[in-house]
Amino acid sequence: MLSLISLSHGSGGELTHQLIDRVFMSKLGNPILAEMDDAARLRDSYCDWCFTTDSFVVKPLFFPGGDIGRLAVCGTVNDLCVAGAVPAFLSAGFIIEEGFETRRLHDVVDSMKEAALESGVQVVAGDTKVVEKGGADGLYINTAGIGKIPPGRKISASMARPGDAIIVSGTVGQHGAAVMLARGEMSFRGRIESDVNPLRALTNALLNACPEIHVMRDPTRGGLATVLNEIARQSAVSMLINEQSIPVSSEVDSICQLLGLDPLYLACEGRVVIFLPAPLASKALETLRRLPAGRKAAIIGEVSGRAQRWDGGAGWQGAGRQVGQVVLKTTAGGYRPLPMLAGEPIPRIC
Amino acid sequence: MLSLISLSHGSGGELTHQLIDRVFMSKLGNPILAEMDDAARLRDSYCDWCFTTDSFVVKPLFFPGGDIGRLAVCGTVNDLCVAGAVPAFLSAGFIIEEGFETRRLHDVVDSMKEAALESGVQVVAGDTKVVEKGGADGLYINTAGIGKIPPGRKISASMARPGDAIIVSGTVGQHGAAVMLARGEMSFRGRIESDVNPLRALTNALLNACPEIHVMRDPTRGGLATVLNEIARQSAVSMLINEQSIPVSSEVDSICQLLGLDPLYLACEGRVVIFLPAPLASKALETLRRLPAGRKAAIIGEVSGRAQRWDGGAGWQGAGRQVGQVVLKTTAGGYRPLPMLAGEPIPRIC
Repeated sequence: MLSLISLSHGSGGELTHQLIDRVFMSKLGNPILAEMDDAARLRDSYCDWCFTTDSFVVKPLFFPGGDIGRLAVCGTVNDLCVAGAVPAFLSAGFIIEEGFETRRLHDVVDSMKEAALESGVQVVAGDTKVVEKGGADGLYINTAGIGKIPPGRKISASMARPGDAIIVSGTVGQHGAAVMLARGEMSFRGRIESDVNPLRALTNALLNACPEIHVMRDPTRGGLATVLNEIARQSAVSMLINEQSIPVSSEVDSICQLLGLDPLYLACEGRVVIFLPAPLASKALETLRRLPAGRKAAIIGEVSGRAQRWDGGAGWQGAGRQVGQVVLKTTAGGYRPLPMLAGEPIPRIC
Repeated sequence: MLSLISLSHGSGGELTHQLIDRVFMSKLGNPILAEMDDAARLRDSYCDWCFTTDSFVVKPLFFPGGDIGRLAVCGTVNDLCVAGAVPAFLSAGFIIEEGFETRRLHDVVDSMKEAALESGVQVVAGDTKVVEKGGADGLYINTAGIGKIPPGRKISASMARPGDAIIVSGTVGQHGAAVMLARGEMSFRGRIESDVNPLRALTNALLNACPEIHVMRDPTRGGLATVLNEIARQSAVSMLINEQSIPVSSEVDSICQLLGLDPLYLACEGRVVIFLPAPLASKALETLRRLPAGRKAAIIGEVSGRAQRWDGGAGWQGAGRQVGQVVLKTTAGGYRPLPMLAGEPIPRIC
């Protein structure tokens, strides 16, 4: 049987993980890549560096709250921030479709400039390729980023521990909903602003206040639900999430109800999920809420134990295996597993 | 007038340089980016790092001597090598067209694995995006790379000095010719192997033998002629190149004569151009020729002076401006300017 790449392989969900495991990790794997954090940690004799990359294929290129340029800077900066690194340098690679308006390229690069200034990073390397009409959809951008990790800091998706509180820094799903609406394919109107923003101020304040943070991650492709599952797997823990506590704006909530979408699977581009020892949760929450971008921060759940499974009415059970489960306590008061994104409801949101 | 991006903006020649100056440099410019070397030099208190990126859109994806995977590793590794850095880490970002055969993705990643092993680098960060059918031409890959520069080493396209000898490490134009033929659009058959290879062994041997090297550069897009012009501009020197001394394989020569192409504008992906004080040229040449990849190395010219112009019969004249000229002494014995690539004879060769 001929196996073909599908849009779901780029969703950030189950199929993306399969592709990574079977193709990339199995062939290119090494101890650094195997850590599977948002940024690679390069250990050096003097200090540790962080290195990460993302390609951006968002459609449309311009949407309320941002554009592909802002996204390309913030996306990579944020991957460095959630690794606990201080973002410093970016590279930018452009793949442009022949016939693209130079004026729009100027607009995109203006956005990159602004986002780079906000993030405190310099673009120090670049590349431009042009492909024939039909060879790309306007413009794709890849950014790679380098940051420095202060000595002694260790933040990783594999560090979640039983007893950790789980915090999200703001409303979820706004970027995914904004991009979806901006495509104009819906039969109704609506305007939702993307949350695309550099996380640097938030993560910096958090790490100053609570250096004991175990995990930070930005819930981009696949949304909050997918990122929680990634952390559950990498840390081999299970967790209980309280649906009622998850901040969702009323606009995103309405759109999701209308379209039968779940905001927990819609991408954010300016939010961070934090795991830290429960006694520190209120301090972290206060720190976040003092910043404009963190006003809606909330504690949304807790890590229940190492590799446990929620077994319906019987509660948490020893799982006898290494991979943990994410369980959602629903607004209605029931419990259900909250799996990783399986299909691809909205392609090309980043 | 509406200005649109054309294929020539991606040629690596004049229009690419205009686009870089007017859009990228004018908005994102900073002292590191302004050095315009193949890799950015990141100065740190302990040691210097090198950082570079390239996107690869080669068509076809597989060609004699290599494929997009090998190219994506070697291209970025070589940009680090010619900066005098020891390549260490790569990131890889994949943009895949929906419907791409998984088997071919495996082949590409196998090539990347092999090229990474040959180059002594680890792929430590990655990203996968999938776009709808028609949104890309099969597969595009971006790689970014990090290397370390040994203390005291300073290699840059701005370091060419009057009196320097100019060496090329092997035959030119093979990659460009190989990719062109592999497209099968020509009315004749022919098979030329690309020279795509990591330069690490060559540049390492060269720097050990001749640490006084001023400039190294790999003549990729735009070929040897374009790279010489870049160096002339960045170093503000002029140079005289001896056409007869430039190594060109008989296959590439035949194809070029048949199609009216100039091998000096065809891309190489495993060659290096070296500028160094003339008294060291024979030592560098010996070093190169001892290695299989350097057997055809040759001295092809010399740096004539700071910002001089060749004025026909009158010889070199003070130019009164900062930008130097590249002059070719032709096989026929005449002299003519050898300008930077102006159009785009063969798009998507890397």
